Amino acid sequence: MDDTHISLAHGNGGRFMRELIREIFQHHLGNPDLDINTDAVTLTIPGSEIMFTTDGFSVQPLEFPGGDIGSLAVHGTVNDLAVSGAEPLYLSLNAFIEEGFELALLDRLIHSLAEAAKESGARIVAGDTKVVPRGHGGGLYLATTGIGRRLSPLKLGMENIEPGDAILVSGSVGDHGTAVMLAREAFGLHGDIRSDATSVLPLTRCLLDVDGLRFMRDPTRGGLATVMHEISHATGFGVRLEQSSIPIKDPVQSVCDMLGYDPLFLACEGRVVAVVAETAAEQALEYWRQKADGKDAAIIGRVEDTHQHVVLVTELGGERILEELEDEPLPRIC
Amino acid sequence: MDDTHISLAHGNGGRFMRELIREIFQHHLGNPDLDINTDAVTLTIPGSEIMFTTDGFSVQPLEFPGGDIGSLAVHGTVNDLAVSGAEPLYLSLNAFIEEGFELALLDRLIHSLAEAAKESGARIVAGDTKVVPRGHGGGLYLATTGIGRRLSPLKLGMENIEPGDAILVSGSVGDHGTAVMLAREAFGLHGDIRSDATSVLPLTRCLLDVDGLRFMRDPTRGGLATVMHEISHATGFGVRLEQSSIPIKDPVQSVCDMLGYDPLFLACEGRVVAVVAETAAEQALEYWRQKADGKDAAIIGRVEDTHQHVVLVTELGGERILEELEDEPLPRIC
Repeated sequence: MDDTHISLAHGNGGRFMRELIREIFQHHLGNPDLDINTDAVTLTIPGSEIMFTTDGFSVQPLEFPGGDIGSLAVHGTVNDLAVSGAEPLYLSLNAFIEEGFELALLDRLIHSLAEAAKESGARIVAGDTKVVPRGHGGGLYLATTGIGRRLSPLKLGMENIEPGDAILVSGSVGDHGTAVMLAREAFGLHGDIRSDATSVLPLTRCLLDVDGLRFMRDPTRGGLATVMHEISHATGFGVRLEQSSIPIKDPVQSVCDMLGYDPLFLACEGRVVAVVAETAAEQALEYWRQKADGKDAAIIGRVEDTHQHVVLVTELGGERILEELEDEPLPRIC
Repeated sequence: MDDTHISLAHGNGGRFMRELIREIFQHHLGNPDLDINTDAVTLTIPGSEIMFTTDGFSVQPLEFPGGDIGSLAVHGTVNDLAVSGAEPLYLSLNAFIEEGFELALLDRLIHSLAEAAKESGARIVAGDTKVVPRGHGGGLYLATTGIGRRLSPLKLGMENIEPGDAILVSGSVGDHGTAVMLAREAFGLHGDIRSDATSVLPLTRCLLDVDGLRFMRDPTRGGLATVMHEISHATGFGVRLEQSSIPIKDPVQSVCDMLGYDPLFLACEGRVVAVVAETAAEQALEYWRQKADGKDAAIIGRVEDTHQHVVLVTELGGERILEELEDEPLPRIC
């Protein structure tokens, strides 16, 4: 393959496509279960139960401080399995590549994707590429679908949540959304804000031992505030957050203040929100703080027997209702 | 949801997105295994073995005579399982929707997708939507990932192919590619050419009873000729096709002659190519001809102990080497 950029012929089913798949995708993703000559792969599953999830990725820019669309496409799907109490086994990968895309960049992104998959213990076992004409894509869109294995008989879910339960977050919020925004826009702002994007498996695994764990979720699109609304919608209970307890890095807060964003609505890609019984909150917090990615973990609020409100108790002791996201066109952060 | 078109807010994680997912995706795709409030779904699998495949879809136009991107997104993945000797159980769905996309059209396409899934017996159990900015998409891109169950202990694969084996096709070739081309381009040509897109499950199921079945594949991107090249590459054997035996509809041939395309390279989305032992060829043909979608089935050639060539014996008895697709930017037909 002696070209430097993607052409429509890389999507036509012929020699160019075969070489693209072999020299970039198979080259980086190769593993004993990946067979690029087959229509469907046969997989052996431990037991007769699997967990299944899918996620699409259209982040801009494709590379940002702390990650890129390749690693994000693994972390997003791995994390959906992780917060469901599972570990990933197998992933499929779809790539929509725009004509004119630089092959060196594609190679870098798929390499990064492969590294993230290896770290999380997941194998890419099925894939497909489509080439879309110049002007009909954002460079590269990815979609991954994951098959996982439940790590605990515990059935986690919002239906387990009860009034009085504590709400925890594993680290600072809004880092990913802010890092991507700064990388994209020409705000003239520079700093060392990095995305928090990573696999949350170490954080979710250790919480499965906590008696009283109800529910976990990674606060991606819509951020921490949106997860709180999801809990409130699904349970009919209220949520009360203590602003002073929510970890937000100073540079993230400063950038958000300047640009008019609320970090509570900005995406994280490496954090976990957990709801646990009140009696188990301190233990969960301790487990998290022992982990590298959990040292800033905090108990940030509780579930209340009030009707469907998300209330933020401000640092001055006032209360403010945290509204649901409406028509804000938030940046493409995942 | 009182809007008529997709806005960026439909992708932000908040209320608009929740309503879009509920009112279009859940509305059409709803089934007992689909839970839009969960990160990963728990699935029960018969046995401890599954088959797994994925496919992306970027066809233009989104609706064409005989199908649309919605039904195609189901048929493409269902057919990859079918030709592998499996039946589909579960599907995941990713949608990349362009800002400004008409909601009525989205509703129609997802309805069509749901109908195709029902017909094939597959349940959509996981999904994700992303909204990309105006000018950064082709309206709608879809990706589906399928989990299936093997219907027979037979391990189909190109490694089973032997010299002397017969090659069959289940119906006329090039219909889908030609129909999509005519629907897109302003050639001023009109006719009743319809896509052949459909589930091939009835065709693959009945062939599993044929003793001597080696391999099946659906000739999509790159068409029949590309499947022949794949066989030749993988086995090291040659392939000899009889032009006069290959079913091609007259209007398809006429349009291809006018536009300079070879129907052997154009996509089918509802045909099967099968390789069977010579002694089983007539039985396979009979099974197919009993099916509605197999009445034009034909034995079109054989595998030969020559080195990696795809040879077409012309109607006049001459021979021509069928080259592999190179840099032809073929129309976006899947």
